[in-house]
Amino acid sequence: MRITNVKITPIAIPDVPLANTKGVHPSVFLRAIIEVETDTGLTGLGEAYGAARTLKGLQTVAPTLEGLDPYNLRDLRQRVETALPEGGGVNAPTALADHKVVDVVYSAFEIALLDIRGKEIDRPLYDLLGGAVRKTIPFGGYLFYKFAKQDLTFGPDIMGEVMTPDALIEQAKEFSAKYGFKSWKLKGGVLHPDLEVETMLKLRETFPTHGLRIDPMGAWSPKTALKVIKDLGGVEGGVLEYLEDPCRGMDAMAELSAQTDMPLATNLVVVEFDEIIEAVKKDAVQIVLSDHHYWRGATGAIHLGEMCRAANLGVSMHSNSHLGISLAAMCHVAAATPNLTYDCDTHYPWSAKEIIKGGRPTFQNGTLQVPEGPGLGVELDHEAVAQLHDLYNTAMVQDRDDTDEMLKYIPDYVRKVPRW
Amino acid sequence: MRITNVKITPIAIPDVPLANTKGVHPSVFLRAIIEVETDTGLTGLGEAYGAARTLKGLQTVAPTLEGLDPYNLRDLRQRVETALPEGGGVNAPTALADHKVVDVVYSAFEIALLDIRGKEIDRPLYDLLGGAVRKTIPFGGYLFYKFAKQDLTFGPDIMGEVMTPDALIEQAKEFSAKYGFKSWKLKGGVLHPDLEVETMLKLRETFPTHGLRIDPMGAWSPKTALKVIKDLGGVEGGVLEYLEDPCRGMDAMAELSAQTDMPLATNLVVVEFDEIIEAVKKDAVQIVLSDHHYWRGATGAIHLGEMCRAANLGVSMHSNSHLGISLAAMCHVAAATPNLTYDCDTHYPWSAKEIIKGGRPTFQNGTLQVPEGPGLGVELDHEAVAQLHDLYNTAMVQDRDDTDEMLKYIPDYVRKVPRW
Ligand SMILES: [Mg+2]
Ligand SMILES: [Mg+2]
Repeated sequence: MRITNVKITPIAIPDVPLANTKGVHPSVFLRAIIEVETDTGLTGLGEAYGAARTLKGLQTVAPTLEGLDPYNLRDLRQRVETALPEGGGVNAPTALADHKVVDVVYSAFEIALLDIRGKEIDRPLYDLLGGAVRKTIPFGGYLFYKFAKQDLTFGPDIMGEVMTPDALIEQAKEFSAKYGFKSWKLKGGVLHPDLEVETMLKLRETFPTHGLRIDPMGAWSPKTALKVIKDLGGVEGGVLEYLEDPCRGMDAMAELSAQTDMPLATNLVVVEFDEIIEAVKKDAVQIVLSDHHYWRGATGAIHLGEMCRAANLGVSMHSNSHLGISLAAMCHVAAATPNLTYDCDTHYPWSAKEIIKGGRPTFQNGTLQVPEGPGLGVELDHEAVAQLHDLYNTAMVQDRDDTDEMLKYIPDYVRKVPRW
Repeated sequence: MRITNVKITPIAIPDVPLANTKGVHPSVFLRAIIEVETDTGLTGLGEAYGAARTLKGLQTVAPTLEGLDPYNLRDLRQRVETALPEGGGVNAPTALADHKVVDVVYSAFEIALLDIRGKEIDRPLYDLLGGAVRKTIPFGGYLFYKFAKQDLTFGPDIMGEVMTPDALIEQAKEFSAKYGFKSWKLKGGVLHPDLEVETMLKLRETFPTHGLRIDPMGAWSPKTALKVIKDLGGVEGGVLEYLEDPCRGMDAMAELSAQTDMPLATNLVVVEFDEIIEAVKKDAVQIVLSDHHYWRGATGAIHLGEMCRAANLGVSMHSNSHLGISLAAMCHVAAATPNLTYDCDTHYPWSAKEIIKGGRPTFQNGTLQVPEGPGLGVELDHEAVAQLHDLYNTAMVQDRDDTDEMLKYIPDYVRKVPRW
């Protein structure tokens, strides 16, 4: 079996103004839909970031995959590295480091190859990852402070302005009623830490048994982070199951870690396999967030799980804004990662579109059933893709800049990390 | 597809008195041949240690595998752990720690399951490990000091007594002529270090460009090891490509490592994934020896490669006495481990029997071609198995005790680690 053709389709999906340490989500988010065709007639699907740098990387690699055997992931890796010396030299203004473009592009195609292989043998993708330890995948609700959407050109708002603790609780209640989430993650680093503490305490009050997390994306100094931990009741009997990226950089995380027993999680300071080793040496984090989009695909995410087990680190799952192909892949990885013991993050409820047949999967009690395949277990709705590709062309947005977007809401906004 | 039956056949293979730090090889070595049958008619093969503790573990687990899906390696793991609480409580006198029995039993069955899966899709096993980066697998010649075999009941000797540097060089020449090896590993810790240094220097003289290693299995103190390194020309321009297990225990290795830039390799102090982390923290070793027999199968060996890459450690491959099923599995793992950059060890030339159809594979210029499958790419010669199973019954040996065996040659032998 050989690859005959690879199709990359950039799409834009209406988004809402979710706030974070960098700024705020623009009116659309971008994804790239990948279709890998083979000489057997089987097609594999993938979904990647759609911003310029990734898109250029995918487009540069795509023609070099002709003739690739979908079983040879190491040949795929080699072809990606060859096609993208220094990450392709695509100097679009994104946060992705050069070498991460290679990982991201590899990851997107790997999922498509695994999808093909699953289809070939009529097996769900998780069976290619060593088998499922769970078929029901628990997700947490991802809560955001947000502005009311001003420009409704590309799509409606969801939930209006949420800029106070009380408004955030209403948001959680709405998500709870709709999706039944059993845990919450708050994107923090947006309001003053005292207000975010108040929000978390109110979440605890409203949802007494939910798992709770907050992710200020490095907005706090170690001193501020220590005060937040204390204000949230400390480790034993406190509000948090873990604290995600309170401080910016490995050394700041290590400085904080040395002063608290609160488990620190990250998807910012440990994004490479060798950074796991560095983090262990410095005892900087206790939980690493998995994400098949940049941890070298689904097989890389499985390696990550094994490495975290060896290093006595916990595993949770990171999410960016995404659609159903990524959601399916996340489910398969989660099914096959024994030590992924926390509810997975997902931005999914914050969009309303879908590009897979059958439309948007429904969370039941905060969980999804892993699609039973073959492969990813999802099929592309080509009409839906075409519509969102039209939006990509119409929107004239090729990149995502949350800080720039923030100026529309707060004209004198200056990004500052740490801010407090 | 489901497993319907598992057959375990212990066999004994004539061995020769190869010396090491523990003592000397008895007149037979023991292996267990595994046949896993499925409801599709496909059968998978495995080969494991055959000593009492492993054998009992394999036999205890075998009936619990009925109904297992060969794709579900995590279910396999679960069944093995369930069937062998505390390693099965099999207190036979072997060096295997309790938890390693679980790993060893899991590993043997995993290979058989991968063999089945390869056969099902008509693909070589390496394709289930992410694909091959090489098809030609380089092996090193494994040189031993040895006694002349006294008891020829079970089979002839090979090369007679080899207890001097000059005799060892003759052994290397014979192996070189027969198999074309391009590197040598000497099992050291047998003669006085000065004699082993003399042996290595003569090997260098006789084979100017061969890779050279010595493995005294912890026989030396750090001080002695330092002197050996110096006597062998040090790191730059010296004789060794690496030094394997010069000292006993992680801390002694770390003590030595702190005093030399000689790369230290191990298959003794790092045999668990969490020991990689410990070794990195202590900077105790620079190269880890892979071995699918105890690193949680072929998939575990691939994880090991990934983890070593992350930790900036080299990867080489360990060998015990084995036959052709293990040899094939080693080739597939080596093919699919990109950073396995050293020639693999193998005891293979020290036996003369085979239990696979077509007989013994032939080394060409020290290399083997990875079998192109399906699966492992080898078939069982049931008649040959039956003969070696008869020998197992005749020999009345259920365990291996090199120290006990040594008393036949040196009646007052006392095992001592470190000895020098
Ligand atoms: Mg985060
Ligand atoms: Mg060794």
